[in-house]
Amino acid sequence: MLDPALEALVHDKNFASLTTLTADGTPQASIMWIDCDHEHLLINTEVARAKFRNVSHNPQVNVLIWERTNPYHYVEVRGVVTSMTRGSRAADHLEELARKYTGQAFAGTVESDRVILEITPKRIRVVD
Amino acid sequence: MLDPALEALVHDKNFASLTTLTADGTPQASIMWIDCDHEHLLINTEVARAKFRNVSHNPQVNVLIWERTNPYHYVEVRGVVTSMTRGSRAADHLEELARKYTGQAFAGTVESDRVILEITPKRIRVVD
Repeated sequence: MLDPALEALVHDKNFASLTTLTADGTPQASIMWIDCDHEHLLINTEVARAKFRNVSHNPQVNVLIWERTNPYHYVEVRGVVTSMTRGSRAADHLEELARKYTGQAFAGTVESDRVILEITPKRIRVVD
Repeated sequence: MLDPALEALVHDKNFASLTTLTADGTPQASIMWIDCDHEHLLINTEVARAKFRNVSHNPQVNVLIWERTNPYHYVEVRGVVTSMTRGSRAADHLEELARKYTGQAFAGTVESDRVILEITPKRIRVVD
């Protein structure tokens, strides 16, 4: 089960940083929409992105999720990408995220296949 | 010279994530106050923190700075810690940051010597 503080931050439309590692071990980071089930963090990206190439080679990631109106409250998750899901389930998941964050259908550009990164936490740190 | 978009985000009391690498290459991240001069990002931490131990062994870092009210606008900096300053200058810098972010003297707990991490950007990515 995820920490309740983590689930609360995810469900409240907060944003996350996702750090992955390039082939030479350099940390690369982006700000992302974030979702979870009761055991994993879920991030929706595209297979053409560097972050997807990175986790395909090295599944270690770091995710920070902070309270939009109070970034002194945040959760750090060190974890591992344990599953990647493509196809219609990933496309549907993007639409769920768009509705959650914007209240509308996804209005961005999809350049390649969408993919859900399922992240299993190894260590969770809650900061207040 | 830093990118003007980066300097603007730093000067507008926005928050930053700092990712460092542990001895085994695992990314570790925290949300931090952020400052800059015209060539470097400046982060104030303590010598007893894991992030300080990490950069002492591996100077590679990643910094994200996002607009508080619009996290779709952010800057990613991949860089290297090129200088670390301790002593009264670091203590004074903490007070400058506290005044910038809170309008008051620093009210937190200082557990060990403060240190300024001077980060030289190697790659800057502006996202809108």
